[in-house]
Amino acid sequence: MTDPAVGPAGPRRGRRSVDVPELVRGARSGDPRSVARLISLVEDASPLLREVAAALTPHTGGAQVVGVTGPPGVGKSTTTTALVAGFRAAGRRVGVLAVDPSSPFSGGALLGDRVRMGDHALDDGVYIRSMASRGHLGGLAWSTPQALRVLDAAGCDVVLVETVGVGQSELEVASLADTTLVLLAPGMGDGVQAAKAGILEVADVLVVNKADREGADRTVRELRAMLTLGHEQDGWRPPVCRTVASRESDTGVPELLAHVEEHRRWLVSSGEGQRRRTERATREIEAIAVAELRSRMGDLRGSTALASLAAEVLAGRTDPYRAADELVRQLGHASARMGP
Amino acid sequence: MTDPAVGPAGPRRGRRSVDVPELVRGARSGDPRSVARLISLVEDASPLLREVAAALTPHTGGAQVVGVTGPPGVGKSTTTTALVAGFRAAGRRVGVLAVDPSSPFSGGALLGDRVRMGDHALDDGVYIRSMASRGHLGGLAWSTPQALRVLDAAGCDVVLVETVGVGQSELEVASLADTTLVLLAPGMGDGVQAAKAGILEVADVLVVNKADREGADRTVRELRAMLTLGHEQDGWRPPVCRTVASRESDTGVPELLAHVEEHRRWLVSSGEGQRRRTERATREIEAIAVAELRSRMGDLRGSTALASLAAEVLAGRTDPYRAADELVRQLGHASARMGP
Repeated sequence: MTDPAVGPAGPRRGRRSVDVPELVRGARSGDPRSVARLISLVEDASPLLREVAAALTPHTGGAQVVGVTGPPGVGKSTTTTALVAGFRAAGRRVGVLAVDPSSPFSGGALLGDRVRMGDHALDDGVYIRSMASRGHLGGLAWSTPQALRVLDAAGCDVVLVETVGVGQSELEVASLADTTLVLLAPGMGDGVQAAKAGILEVADVLVVNKADREGADRTVRELRAMLTLGHEQDGWRPPVCRTVASRESDTGVPELLAHVEEHRRWLVSSGEGQRRRTERATREIEAIAVAELRSRMGDLRGSTALASLAAEVLAGRTDPYRAADELVRQLGHASARMGP
Repeated sequence: MTDPAVGPAGPRRGRRSVDVPELVRGARSGDPRSVARLISLVEDASPLLREVAAALTPHTGGAQVVGVTGPPGVGKSTTTTALVAGFRAAGRRVGVLAVDPSSPFSGGALLGDRVRMGDHALDDGVYIRSMASRGHLGGLAWSTPQALRVLDAAGCDVVLVETVGVGQSELEVASLADTTLVLLAPGMGDGVQAAKAGILEVADVLVVNKADREGADRTVRELRAMLTLGHEQDGWRPPVCRTVASRESDTGVPELLAHVEEHRRWLVSSGEGQRRRTERATREIEAIAVAELRSRMGDLRGSTALASLAAEVLAGRTDPYRAADELVRQLGHASARMGP
């Protein structure tokens, strides 16, 4: 009893049954399943990637992307949780992307995330997604901007991206974020170390968390001193604030929220926000173009064209550079033919 | 007293004074200075790279490229030295590229290399070049094929490429070589380990060096057993030979040389040599083409075209994928315009 419409193996799961416009409508109206489904599609480099991106892009640009970074153990996850509570109290819709493999938000299942996220798991205004444990094509650097786009289009006012450290090759959160929060803790990240690690340069707001611990005053003082020495762009000097974020405490978190909001306004008024987003879009376009060219080059593998170029080089009739010029020319013609 | 022809800073050194055709003539007639100069030019990604490659390529293809690889401490350099002696005794011209940073051939100055190379340093039929200590654009993976081309065109019958380990990301010697010798020593690289490391797959000839040590018999036995299990291509089953290569001994080296020669003949008769060289040329052409496309993309940075694509994405009028298609199209048109 084979149904010819679905083939002998029975109805195919996945691609066939995905209705992208419907998912986008669902996401925009606040359906968490649609949001989760769209993120899965873009994470897995689904063949629908392009369709999803095209459907989402017109609805993006509304979210403030806030990077939360700092060394392991500094309290990124508790701070993120406290920020979510603060944004929710102000009526904002919030997304969280946990890119740090050591984050308690990470570890795979959305259900697991929800359990760990505790307070916010059943709140309709919060989406939480762990990225770190998934294996996908191109890694986190590829899939995080895609997931951001989903949350942005789904109407999040703020998306918090929690990542480990600065200077990770995997993902430089500062290059994704509108506003980058760098968290330090007394005794572990003193000012000089932070400066050496390049942390001060990427920070829009510096947070000394666990500020009830010994040494907090010194860390704050050192950071302020180093910031005085330089690093002011168009009127924004990164503030240093003190927090004690934990399940029991949100000391300093309201001030931190105020700094994040102040930075958002500065991004708009100074034009820096537009500059950062342009830079981000430029990099994404370039990355996709490089991937596309590589894939076309891969398609040429085993083609007569490339084989005959290699043969010409082996015969000494041309050299690899001229052969490469010719290859680029052929790729160019191929893309010109695909033109509108 | 400024000479207008050379500018106020006096005669420019370098580029102006390089006569590529003259250097190529010099190298082909056996002048070691010309060979060294050409290698320096290609290593440093000189603007003359293309001219050098074009001048050399017609004279290449004569050399058998023999990779010598294996874990540190296995005796790669003494074995290489013994092989050089053997090839010289047979009247062959030999080049050596030492890519292993721990090799005694490495460490910078050609003079230093010569001192360490001892016996062969003053022999006109041997070129020795250390690659590992130089910092150049694109790294060893880029400059080693270039240096190989110089030695090939200079009339070397054999070029020995000595590298550390297999599976290095820096340079996979097997992908460069016509014939790959994998060296192991008793007790350090037993058969199972070698199989796990993927060493057996790339080996054309397996060498158990330091074969006077305890455990050599077992290592040879294990390797032969594993080779019996599979791994025979078109009539070539990698032989396992035993050597004791040192300043005082060349036990087993004549047999090793015979295997290398036998493999060379098999490469020709089976067509595998041509297949490997085609694969190598293909990869080099692709690598140059990718570098060229990346550079053109870099040139577009800050251009009106890319900026306006980014602006379209930000405005939600297009998505990054369609923008990337457009970018590729523009690169394609640029290359089409550069056509012959």
